[in-house]
Amino acid sequence: MPQRTVFFVSDQTGVTAETLGHSLLTQFDGLEFRPVTVPFVDSVDKVEQLAKRIDAACEETGSRPIVFTSLVDERLRARLLRCNALVLDFFEAFLAPLEQELQVISSHALGKAHRMADVASYNLRIDATNYAMAADDGHSTRHYDQADVILTGVSRSGKTPTCLYLALQYGIFAANYPLAEEDLESGRLPNRLMAFKSKLYGLTISPERLRQIRLERRSVGRYASAQQVSFELRAAEGLFKRYNIPYVDTTHCSVEEIASTILSVTGIERRVRP
Amino acid sequence: MPQRTVFFVSDQTGVTAETLGHSLLTQFDGLEFRPVTVPFVDSVDKVEQLAKRIDAACEETGSRPIVFTSLVDERLRARLLRCNALVLDFFEAFLAPLEQELQVISSHALGKAHRMADVASYNLRIDATNYAMAADDGHSTRHYDQADVILTGVSRSGKTPTCLYLALQYGIFAANYPLAEEDLESGRLPNRLMAFKSKLYGLTISPERLRQIRLERRSVGRYASAQQVSFELRAAEGLFKRYNIPYVDTTHCSVEEIASTILSVTGIERRVRP
Repeated sequence: MPQRTVFFVSDQTGVTAETLGHSLLTQFDGLEFRPVTVPFVDSVDKVEQLAKRIDAACEETGSRPIVFTSLVDERLRARLLRCNALVLDFFEAFLAPLEQELQVISSHALGKAHRMADVASYNLRIDATNYAMAADDGHSTRHYDQADVILTGVSRSGKTPTCLYLALQYGIFAANYPLAEEDLESGRLPNRLMAFKSKLYGLTISPERLRQIRLERRSVGRYASAQQVSFELRAAEGLFKRYNIPYVDTTHCSVEEIASTILSVTGIERRVRP
Repeated sequence: MPQRTVFFVSDQTGVTAETLGHSLLTQFDGLEFRPVTVPFVDSVDKVEQLAKRIDAACEETGSRPIVFTSLVDERLRARLLRCNALVLDFFEAFLAPLEQELQVISSHALGKAHRMADVASYNLRIDATNYAMAADDGHSTRHYDQADVILTGVSRSGKTPTCLYLALQYGIFAANYPLAEEDLESGRLPNRLMAFKSKLYGLTISPERLRQIRLERRSVGRYASAQQVSFELRAAEGLFKRYNIPYVDTTHCSVEEIASTILSVTGIERRVRP
């Protein structure tokens, strides 16, 4: 069976159409799709070109492409509806009920989402990203007073990508502190963390998964040994429990899930909305 | 007028519901909303609690909340529909037409999007993130052979956050190289970049905006002076043109827009889909 082509079409970045479409397609197990993202479709010329690509994909594969769109301009959307494709447009589906509820006609203005809404929120995300990089890996505990949250756990438990995601997505200032051998052996939280105990959030992971991650990094020797990995994780979880630090098991979690869990448990406010 | 409460509800992270809802709400200029994200609503108990919060928000503000949901379980969704709120559910809106088109009944399985679909794509995102951090700020040009793209431009033109976003969102290996004073004065691309010229992508920005960014970082002296900023940007754009390096003006762009533009212009394939 030929693969269906799936177009994610937007007058902006395509991120919303991709997110929406991907969520829906994951409900169809076992089917394979050929994804094509087409951002910045904001003129009659561009929509004409795209319409030709969609119809060509239909001829080529012998099955109708699926088109997820978030086109605000009704004329552009109308052109896509004439293609030989299933066109799912979420502005069309949801704007009318929203307008009725809010008793306001929407602006139908191009490119509002994922635009630099205001300089302040752009700056926040950049500042938070710079902060996460400066406060990565326990580098500068002296800036912990600025942190919204301080992630802690053993090496390779997911701290760094989660901090960066929190910064880029939500403008949250997230530091991270890797638990060192001496912290784990003493069973005591290091003094410089004690002052910030209320900001701590622990990450843990299964020994099997951690070993796999460490081995994949071509780490040899004790670092990836079954014994070492088990010792570190037991000791880290012991610390979290002893000091009442909330923690999450990241074994089966994506970065998005770890971040959402932390925000949901701690109640930290997003400084920026996606 | 009391602010409308807007709930972003999901059986998973809430990222999809937030993205969708935010895109729609940005079409209603001037209205203010109070956003509440409620992730991991995956049981009857949790949906009952949430339903009470929604009805309480309605009483408190005197206007019906708006609820964006991506609940897969129909029973949970049905409970929300009995709330005094406008409930917009995109699974409900789009799954039926998709099932008909694909002639498959969808799995209606919980939590597929934003889940760790497979270990391989998780590892890719993490590897790409580590790569971006290691290859930030021109640190290790020796790994440029691994790069999918190398961003270049003057200091504070948006290189680092864009690299991290490309890594986390798409698993793309993005390095960045800040153009140094000597590069700008010589008007020549440094030798170590010449070998990778086809991977280069330039970022530029307006002098006013760059000055503002540099001043906000409390930079004093020449670094943020009007003269220096103009010189650097003119020289950088001169380099891009001389060497036929594609480039984008980031002045009015969000990180998402810069990333989408780069992918769209270069045709670099996403290694991971959001």
